Amino acid sequence: MAKDTGVAEHGSFSAKDYTDPPPAPLFDAVELTKWSFYRALIAEFIATLLFLYITVLTVIGYKSQIDHNADACGGVGILGIAWAFGGMIFVLVYCTAGISGGHINPAVTFGLFLARKVSLVRAVMYMSAQCLGAISGVGLVKAFQKSYYTRYGGGANELADGYSNGVGLAAEIIGTFVLVYTVFSATDPKRSARDSHVPVLAPLPIGFAVFMVHLATIPITGTGINPARSLGAAVIYNKDKAWDDQWIFWVGPFIGAAIAAFYHQFILRAGAVKALGSFRSQTHV
Amino acid sequence: MAKDTGVAEHGSFSAKDYTDPPPAPLFDAVELTKWSFYRALIAEFIATLLFLYITVLTVIGYKSQIDHNADACGGVGILGIAWAFGGMIFVLVYCTAGISGGHINPAVTFGLFLARKVSLVRAVMYMSAQCLGAISGVGLVKAFQKSYYTRYGGGANELADGYSNGVGLAAEIIGTFVLVYTVFSATDPKRSARDSHVPVLAPLPIGFAVFMVHLATIPITGTGINPARSLGAAVIYNKDKAWDDQWIFWVGPFIGAAIAAFYHQFILRAGAVKALGSFRSQTHV
Amino acid sequence: MAKDTGVAEHGSFSAKDYTDPPPAPLFDAVELTKWSFYRALIAEFIATLLFLYITVLTVIGYKSQIDHNADACGGVGILGIAWAFGGMIFVLVYCTAGISGGHINPAVTFGLFLARKVSLVRAVMYMSAQCLGAISGVGLVKAFQKSYYTRYGGGANELADGYSNGVGLAAEIIGTFVLVYTVFSATDPKRSARDSHVPVLAPLPIGFAVFMVHLATIPITGTGINPARSLGAAVIYNKDKAWDDQWIFWVGPFIGAAIAAFYHQFILRAGAVKALGSFRSQTHV
Amino acid sequence: MAKDTGVAEHGSFSAKDYTDPPPAPLFDAVELTKWSFYRALIAEFIATLLFLYITVLTVIGYKSQIDHNADACGGVGILGIAWAFGGMIFVLVYCTAGISGGHINPAVTFGLFLARKVSLVRAVMYMSAQCLGAISGVGLVKAFQKSYYTRYGGGANELADGYSNGVGLAAEIIGTFVLVYTVFSATDPKRSARDSHVPVLAPLPIGFAVFMVHLATIPITGTGINPARSLGAAVIYNKDKAWDDQWIFWVGPFIGAAIAAFYHQFILRAGAVKALGSFRSQTHV
Repeated sequence: MAKDTGVAEHGSFSAKDYTDPPPAPLFDAVELTKWSFYRALIAEFIATLLFLYITVLTVIGYKSQIDHNADACGGVGILGIAWAFGGMIFVLVYCTAGISGGHINPAVTFGLFLARKVSLVRAVMYMSAQCLGAISGVGLVKAFQKSYYTRYGGGANELADGYSNGVGLAAEIIGTFVLVYTVFSATDPKRSARDSHVPVLAPLPIGFAVFMVHLATIPITGTGINPARSLGAAVIYNKDKAWDDQWIFWVGPFIGAAIAAFYHQFILRAGAVKALGSFRSQTHV
Repeated sequence: MAKDTGVAEHGSFSAKDYTDPPPAPLFDAVELTKWSFYRALIAEFIATLLFLYITVLTVIGYKSQIDHNADACGGVGILGIAWAFGGMIFVLVYCTAGISGGHINPAVTFGLFLARKVSLVRAVMYMSAQCLGAISGVGLVKAFQKSYYTRYGGGANELADGYSNGVGLAAEIIGTFVLVYTVFSATDPKRSARDSHVPVLAPLPIGFAVFMVHLATIPITGTGINPARSLGAAVIYNKDKAWDDQWIFWVGPFIGAAIAAFYHQFILRAGAVKALGSFRSQTHV
Repeated sequence: MAKDTGVAEHGSFSAKDYTDPPPAPLFDAVELTKWSFYRALIAEFIATLLFLYITVLTVIGYKSQIDHNADACGGVGILGIAWAFGGMIFVLVYCTAGISGGHINPAVTFGLFLARKVSLVRAVMYMSAQCLGAISGVGLVKAFQKSYYTRYGGGANELADGYSNGVGLAAEIIGTFVLVYTVFSATDPKRSARDSHVPVLAPLPIGFAVFMVHLATIPITGTGINPARSLGAAVIYNKDKAWDDQWIFWVGPFIGAAIAAFYHQFILRAGAVKALGSFRSQTHV
Repeated sequence: MAKDTGVAEHGSFSAKDYTDPPPAPLFDAVELTKWSFYRALIAEFIATLLFLYITVLTVIGYKSQIDHNADACGGVGILGIAWAFGGMIFVLVYCTAGISGGHINPAVTFGLFLARKVSLVRAVMYMSAQCLGAISGVGLVKAFQKSYYTRYGGGANELADGYSNGVGLAAEIIGTFVLVYTVFSATDPKRSARDSHVPVLAPLPIGFAVFMVHLATIPITGTGINPARSLGAAVIYNKDKAWDDQWIFWVGPFIGAAIAAFYHQFILRAGAVKALGSFRSQTHV
């Protein structure tokens, strides 16, 4: 849609029909002087706050529902919880994409930093805003109903009984890989330039990726794949088990994001120019 | 898609690659003389009627289902109810966006009025049409099956046991903020002009925002975030409790919409021109 | 997307920025000589067959599931059944839109005929193809498992106990109105020409409209809103009750479609030209 | 969107407003020398691995959930399992469409080969990569929790009690027909050139087709419609019943894909040029 504009703006007349933006610098002093940078931090803070508020409230509400009602099946179930996480990411990525890029997740920010899409300063500041937002969001839920909140586990990520640390870590690594791989696929400049088959409705598949991973791994770890989400719940819930397992929800997502960045940048994008001629006629969905 | 047309029509040759429409006047005598204005009122009335009809019928049908059947899990559950609200908003915003703007909610109209997107006259008339539509829609459900309707709570919004007025109010404020923030994000003219990553499929994220808020707050207030919806159910159900809590479902949504309008207009859009140069290369999803 | 092409092709240089196609003739002898006409009939037949096959199989499978399993909640529930109907309409309208227009429903064909979008000959032939397809689809399900099929009600539409004929008829009228209103909104040529806010992803809201109506009215009539679907199930199931109520599932949908056609053509589209000047600046979602 | 580009690139000045790519050769030696070919194999391998990992984990997790918990309704249910399969296909087709064409299923590859969209070499290599990926994905799930994995059936496709081989085969044929028909509809070059009503958001209807077929046929065969998925589960689970029925999950999908290829190429596309003139004015959704 904005293809022509984009090419014109970058003033690129190369043989490629798309334009890779230049790698982001590690430290970009100029961006610190711009209102758009601080606005992006505010947007990340608010989005992560809303993300945790809605999702943890859904978790707590579901558990209180099935306890108090005769109707044992009235609650939203794990399916509803998975929808809450995936659906909120869809909505919030849609809303903040134009302001901050719509990360709402330190693992996504880390992956994009490794791929040199954001500067180091921006990455660190985004992660801080996300963690503060997550803590505030879970805090709101606790403020609403302290007794339910504590009784029903506070939405904290913990390894379920019967699973080893290694399995939990692997589940977080693969789950985050699915998410960050989708993020890279959705924001690839090559995609908007050439794939007429696949219009870029980026936030929807990103939200669905989150939904899918929750369906699969809620029984194992409660599904983190977002260190801010896990930290926020642990800080407010503040029980030993949540803190003991916390490392899994930082190490796993960061490794998963790193593998996804490597996979996208070195496997999928390598040799892109060379392959250009043969590419078009063999692409189908 | 219609970018070029849009720019040409407004005759704007500014440095910005998008065009903000001028603020709507408070009172616009000309619009009262146009058929399109009355057509928009009819569309808002019909849409709100259908919204309440489908959603309240789903609520009542679900409750009668689990009472009468051996199959305790046959009903649609809270998940199904949340889908009914969110899905209908998706469908109805899609259908009426080109006729009336697709508000279907006095809180949305209020937020857009504060942002000077609609005139005061239009805002007041829209709200009246929405409230009348909501009352008619719930009335239809009661006409269908009076005994079920009354026995199963009439779809009215009430504060659940164990939650204070303050919590109910806060839940309505934040829930409406999520909705109206999504509406502002989806209809931002800057977005359609510049975000090649995020095509504007506006009604879908708006519907999902409603779906998400219902998942989270049905156990607390039954989820209003739409004063017409709450009023319509209260008028037809007409029990004390529904009227006692009614103020929450007007004050909360209007405050939430006002905060969302402020957030979008003053935080996210401020400094937009200044930031233009630095913006493009740092935007990712 | 194809706007420019469209305008060029119709050779229209009017002041309107969209082009209404001319009304379809009642009898168009030329279309009977074209392969595309018979291809469209085949596509309608196959699509309605697949629609009934998947949805009735879901209904029967669900009921057999909850009978045989210890896991009373393992079945897909009414929510899953509603998804099956809505989701199949989304997929099939998407697949057949370019071949036959993607009606898959005599009520939709009737509404489009009233609005002079299809000729009388085409309308009658489409309805025949749809009914034959529906009978074949349900027949397949019965061939798969006759005992389950008969025991679990054959997917037939019947009025539930406790609801009068009038209520069933009203439920079918309003439900079909929601569907056909969405179809008209999604295929309005004015929409693709002017609404930059709402890109035309037509099959998705149409599918969601079907999903929503099923959530609301399955407890009342099992939800028809598609005479071919009701006829197909009645022919194969062939019990008195299904035949006794059959008229509701023809009269209701046809009235609902007629009202939707009237509403769209005379209320929403009337005065469109006159209102053109005032329209743009007041349209928001 | 990329229409103009596409036409220009193929240098076609025919009367048709779309361009069919030439049929793929059976054996294309050049493609074996390109990095893009091996990259596509890697993408198919990874995508099928992730597909099986997420979906089988969801199946196993659901069954362990309902066994261990007091909350019988806490699991995701068949509805959640159907979402997992359909949603993952949506996400993965979206992610890999630009790299490999996003098949992730030997039946899809077979159908596209029959329609001469991929060469024989590419088809065979894709199927091998998909099968290896599927085995690895299920292997991961077993590595996570061997006892649960084996106890809960390993996600293997087996014919349910009470259904004959013929019914199982028919269910697989029709289910795969629905999927591959949707794939052909979504990737038809005629569609992107002419249908302004139906923008090509291809991965979403493909994912929904998978979701729908799972809703309908999980009670019969567990739903294969993807030989790699059935083989992967059988290899890792490795019980007699899964191997005895395995042929159904290869013969059925391949027949279904062949019928879909025939239906699309010979029924729906035949006479396309001749019908061109009469086509536009009679197409509605």
